[in-house]
Order: sequence, then C-alpha cells, then structure tokens
Amino acid sequence: MHRVNAEMKSCIEECLRCYQTCLSTAMGHCLEIGDQHTEPKHFSLIMACAEICRTSAHVMLIGSELHKRTCRLCAEICAQCAADCERIGEMKDCVDACRHCAESCQKMAA
Amino acid sequence: MHRVNAEMKSCIEECLRCYQTCLSTAMGHCLEIGDQHTEPKHFSLIMACAEICRTSAHVMLIGSELHKRTCRLCAEICAQCAADCERIGEMKDCVDACRHCAESCQKMAA
Amino acid sequence: MHRVNAEMKSCIEECLRCYQTCLSTAMGHCLEIGDQHTEPKHFSLIMACAEICRTSAHVMLIGSELHKRTCRLCAEICAQCAADCERIGEMKDCVDACRHCAESCQKMAA
Amino acid sequence: MHRVNAEMKSCIEECLRCYQTCLSTAMGHCLEIGDQHTEPKHFSLIMACAEICRTSAHVMLIGSELHKRTCRLCAEICAQCAADCERIGEMKDCVDACRHCAESCQKMAA
Repeated sequence: MHRVNAEMKSCIEECLRCYQTCLSTAMGHCLEIGDQHTEPKHFSLIMACAEICRTSAHVMLIGSELHKRTCRLCAEICAQCAADCERIGEMKDCVDACRHCAESCQKMAA
Repeated sequence: MHRVNAEMKSCIEECLRCYQTCLSTAMGHCLEIGDQHTEPKHFSLIMACAEICRTSAHVMLIGSELHKRTCRLCAEICAQCAADCERIGEMKDCVDACRHCAESCQKMAA
Repeated sequence: MHRVNAEMKSCIEECLRCYQTCLSTAMGHCLEIGDQHTEPKHFSLIMACAEICRTSAHVMLIGSELHKRTCRLCAEICAQCAADCERIGEMKDCVDACRHCAESCQKMAA
Repeated sequence: MHRVNAEMKSCIEECLRCYQTCLSTAMGHCLEIGDQHTEPKHFSLIMACAEICRTSAHVMLIGSELHKRTCRLCAEICAQCAADCERIGEMKDCVDACRHCAESCQKMAA
C-alpha cells in the first residue's frame, strides 16, 4: 500500500481482523445462542467495537494524522469488549482479536 | 426511532449532515478546484472528518453507551476540520456543518 | 451540497433515513423483543438493508456514476426488507422507510 | 470466524484487500500525482470501488444470503475500476487487487 509503513500496515491488519471477528461473532455465534449473548449491553458493545475497528483502519488508510486519536479510542473500546466477551465466555477468538488490536492501536497512538 | 431521545436524535442528524457535507465538498468542490483544496493535509482531514461523523451517528443508532466517547472524538475532529476549511476559504457550508456537529457532539459527550 | 441536484438530494435523504430506521429498529426493538425478531434470517436482512442504504447514500455523495447500480440494488433489498418486516409485524416505521427508500432508489436507477 | 466457510473467508479477504488498496492508492498515490489521477471520473470510481468492496465484505460477515447480490455488483465495479486504473497507468497494485476481487466475487455470486 502507498506510503503505509510496516507498523501501520500491521495495525490496519489487526483492526480489520478484529472488525471481522466481532461482526461475525455477534451475527453468528451471539444471535444463535441468545440469552446473555444478545442482552443489549453486550450485543451493542461488540457491534460498536466492530464499527470503531473498521473506522480506525479507514483513517489510517486515508493517510490522516488523526489516526493517532482514532487508534487511541479503538484501543480503549477493544479492551472493554475483550473484558465483556471474557465475562460471558465461549468467545475466545473475539477476546484474542480484541486484545491484539488494542495492543497494536495503543502503540500507534503513542 | 426506537429508544432514541430528542437530544440524541438531533445529534445523529447533525453528524449525518456533517458527514454528507464533508464528503460531497471533498469529492465535488475540492477535487474540482484542486490546488490547496487537494493538498493531502486538507483533503485527508475532511475525509477523516466525514468518516468519524458517520461512525459517531452509527454508534448512537446501535444504542451503545460508548457513544459518549465517539461523540467526544467527533467534536474534536469537527472543530479541527472547521478551522482548516476556514483557513483555505470558499467552504462556508462545511465550516458551518462542522461547527454545528461539534457543538451537538460536545453536549452528548458531557 | 456540491453538485447534487434536488432529486438526488432527496434520494440520499431517503437512504440515510432508511439506514437509521433499520439499524435502530434491529438494535433496539428486535433485540429487546427477541423471538422471531432475532431469528438470523430476519435480523441479518434488516442489518444488511441498513448497510446497503448507507452505501447507496455514500456512492451518491462521492459523485460517482455508479450510483445507478448501487441504487438499483438498494431498491431490491429495501423491498425485500419491507416485506419481511411486514410478515413479522410491529415494525411499521421500518416498513414505511424501506418502501419510501425503494421507490426513490428505483427512480434514481432508471 | 463463525460459520464462514473457506470460500467465503477467501472472498472476504479479497474484498478487504481491494478496499485497502483502492483507498490507500486514491488518498496516497492519486492525490500526490494529481493530473489524470485526480480527474473526478477516475477518483470517484476508485473511491466508489473501495466502498462497495467494504460493503461486500460486511454483508458476508453479517451472514446474509443477500451477499450473492452485493458480490455480483462488487465484481462488476471492480472490473470497471481495474480497467480505468490500467488506462491511466502506474497503478499495477490496484489493477491486480481489483481483478482478484472481481474473480472471487464472481464465484460467490454464482
């Protein structure tokens, strides 16, 4: 990709991976199981996490210096989503994707 | 809309109006005029502003409590975009939309 | 908005209204009621409808001639979403927003 | 990812790769070079291609059967974007990403 250094390229990948995992987990796993998995507090958090990850990648791809701020917010929300997925259980992929994305975004935001 | 109070409804409208104005100004006005209007610093800022406004509305529509954080970030970026559009000139609609959106998001974030 | 005529401006408004209605209905009304409302077939349709409406508006705002094709697809999907919301019931706002959007997109696609 | 088979997983990857390449090429390469690269016809096509690729991936991740229709449209627009990037030249990465995505989406749409 044009003018995107290795560290940013890796962060874009983590954001898009976390976006994919959160969205497919919510719409597949959570909807199917129901119960705690579709309680509005959890379901809206995982969907909001998918959206902010998608946007964080987008702002890096646009080449804007604002990516530091979107990455910082993304890191916070991913950490919160990881904790909530862990609390409910049975969503190890989502916990891992959120943690890796949070770590990568934290570095980009520094 | 379901469970969206009047103040939030108004903020969603401002975010979507600012998103529309930033995106159509960049892709219409800025691309046509060129020069300062397509310098990467300005063009990437107005495109990133469009994206964060779109996302800020989305997180409110999802019904997530995280909207306070996305609104706060949206307010900051809109203020920065308004200032840059004013610096370059000939973008009064965009300056106004960004200022109104920043004000509305600031209230939601409080 | 720059270079957007009255008919297109109206279609963008309908798309964004339908996007808002579908997304807030799914994440508010449907999640809360559960049962038929969160069956994957219905829930994924209303979420996909929200996404294509969002994109249809975006392509018009970008100023691309491709908007005729995204509007045609949006009209088809909105009609399908309206029918499914009517089948399940208790979603009159969503049925109306989808029908109005379908009609407006059909005209733009012509 | 939940309930996403290997062929669909590969198509999602192609769509997100093409989205990344189109967006970063437009906002990096095209804006920097200017001239033919920022003529509205080309620039709006590459930006619309990025958007439809992003949406095509999203609809697959949502788990909607409508993905066949969004994939078909994505394949058409990617083919058109590849041809336009080839006409202007100096965008081999974008031509390749668009062709691979078009091919993968064509299969999913079948």
